[in-house]
Amino acid sequence: MKVSEIGQFGLIDLIDKLIAEARDDRVESWKNLVAGIGDDCAVWHSEPADQLAKVDCQVQGVHFTLETLSWEDLGWKSLAVNLSDIAAMGGIPRYALVSLGLPPDTEVENVLSFYQGLILLSKITGTAVVGGNVSGSPNIFVDVNVLGRVGNTEGKYLSRSAARPRDQIAVTGWLGTAAAGLKMLSEKREFNPGIAACLKQAFSRPEPRLTEGRLLVEKGVKAGMDISDGLLADLGHMCRASHVSAVVRLSQLPIRPEVSSVFQDQSQEMALSGGEDYQLLFTAPANVIEKVRQAAAYPVTVIGEITAPWAETIALMDSQGLRSLPEVRGWDHFKHK
Amino acid sequence: MKVSEIGQFGLIDLIDKLIAEARDDRVESWKNLVAGIGDDCAVWHSEPADQLAKVDCQVQGVHFTLETLSWEDLGWKSLAVNLSDIAAMGGIPRYALVSLGLPPDTEVENVLSFYQGLILLSKITGTAVVGGNVSGSPNIFVDVNVLGRVGNTEGKYLSRSAARPRDQIAVTGWLGTAAAGLKMLSEKREFNPGIAACLKQAFSRPEPRLTEGRLLVEKGVKAGMDISDGLLADLGHMCRASHVSAVVRLSQLPIRPEVSSVFQDQSQEMALSGGEDYQLLFTAPANVIEKVRQAAAYPVTVIGEITAPWAETIALMDSQGLRSLPEVRGWDHFKHK
Repeated sequence: MKVSEIGQFGLIDLIDKLIAEARDDRVESWKNLVAGIGDDCAVWHSEPADQLAKVDCQVQGVHFTLETLSWEDLGWKSLAVNLSDIAAMGGIPRYALVSLGLPPDTEVENVLSFYQGLILLSKITGTAVVGGNVSGSPNIFVDVNVLGRVGNTEGKYLSRSAARPRDQIAVTGWLGTAAAGLKMLSEKREFNPGIAACLKQAFSRPEPRLTEGRLLVEKGVKAGMDISDGLLADLGHMCRASHVSAVVRLSQLPIRPEVSSVFQDQSQEMALSGGEDYQLLFTAPANVIEKVRQAAAYPVTVIGEITAPWAETIALMDSQGLRSLPEVRGWDHFKHK
Repeated sequence: MKVSEIGQFGLIDLIDKLIAEARDDRVESWKNLVAGIGDDCAVWHSEPADQLAKVDCQVQGVHFTLETLSWEDLGWKSLAVNLSDIAAMGGIPRYALVSLGLPPDTEVENVLSFYQGLILLSKITGTAVVGGNVSGSPNIFVDVNVLGRVGNTEGKYLSRSAARPRDQIAVTGWLGTAAAGLKMLSEKREFNPGIAACLKQAFSRPEPRLTEGRLLVEKGVKAGMDISDGLLADLGHMCRASHVSAVVRLSQLPIRPEVSSVFQDQSQEMALSGGEDYQLLFTAPANVIEKVRQAAAYPVTVIGEITAPWAETIALMDSQGLRSLPEVRGWDHFKHK
């Protein structure tokens, strides 16, 4: 059945039921909820902690296509990219509002798959879906708003503008895996099942590094953000916000063997510019980074240093020494083609 | 210059400057703001009051066209429709996040006009714009998320499900004025300047009834919502949420003389089904409504009664007596043609 047959309010009723089934009053967010979907606004009891808010969207043909991303994965990923920003502040997610633009000939079943993917991640992360909107649109778009709180009572969070000269630069997890997954899916490449699953998972179901974000703040890290546009682009944002320069050591880029084994020549470029890994990029003095590494259950890799309190440039270093500034090829929505 | 020439980050820089100029630390929302645009999330100090959140969107070709709505009006209206939901809860707005989808050939100047309209209303209402997103998109869409607080410390708010038999039904302001404005603009009708200005204003620059929403709660009203889809559609939502039925007296519909003078035959239909008036619809016992009427500086009109604790239907009454249930012709995004 198409959404044009069931109508806007019929569709909303089905979505409401899915969300009502996901409600779990043992979870802090649901426990504090006074009114969810059904009234003009969601209402919840406030917490005595600094609040966080972020909005991000996925547009069909710009951020995703249904050839490389299923409806269920789209649901997961639309929430994940926002939760990643909560992680990037060292925060705890609480509530999500979901605005969906749909062509009238969209199958109702697909919309429910979308919500199943989104609700699955919401349960894993304790995020309550408390509001939303469905609207007609010539193409699909998903706009998710996530609200959360700072992860501690002292109001400490990670900022893009706190990188300082002599800080080490580190990342969680691996770089370039999502880009490798997109390449595999869009070019319909066939790899052995273990490799294919690893690459697909990284692209379709990114896991927001919420635990690591909080750990960073706890161990004294002050400068951090998530990697959505690609390492070079996002490190560039951080250098500009902090008025510093950086050196990245190419030999230290954490690249999964699954990526390097199938995309040998391109894996370094994927790690530098691929984007969509939703790992955390952060900087801190060496002793702080060491504390993080010892406490983290997830990989943390030092990939370079913050060098100068000016210039706002990034240099790449390989075994032959320093190389010149690369052209940053991060994503620009309007210039990209 | 087009947004494709200035690029995503160039555009964001210009928007940031506009918003930075609007900052006013004498206003509660800005005073509590720790970090606005520039980091992965906005951060603010929490208030010890129940929180409100709402998302709503405007899609080109579905909700609006640039033939009948200017960019500046689109900015105003995109925020207004969300603030109207805060008003409908009797709440106080605090923060807004704005997600904008734009075709690459959009003129930068138009995006700035959009923000000027939005910022103007944000200043009037004390709402701080603290985050957002710009994205490429084949057509324009605007998704605004507004956060606020309940307007009192006892956690009292207006709900759709609190209408009770024998309540009077009342509305703020006038009905059908926005529909008349849309008809005038889309059919390029010419009226005398006073009438034209009145109709255009109602359609392009709806004023969220924030003061009235708080007053309703203060005077003891429990059941309320805003009228976005049209009186009959929205009263239908309220009847279903409250499991009650309603009678509306056609002779009591508040219709502006500007509307009835130029759209004689159609003005009643506009008032019943027009939509986009963003007035408040509420029900309460007669003595409570009387208290509201005495205290309100803005018109409040009783238009009918809640009749039965069942059926969830609406009857219309005219000078000949009760008429049968009308077909509700409110807006459905997917069924509408």
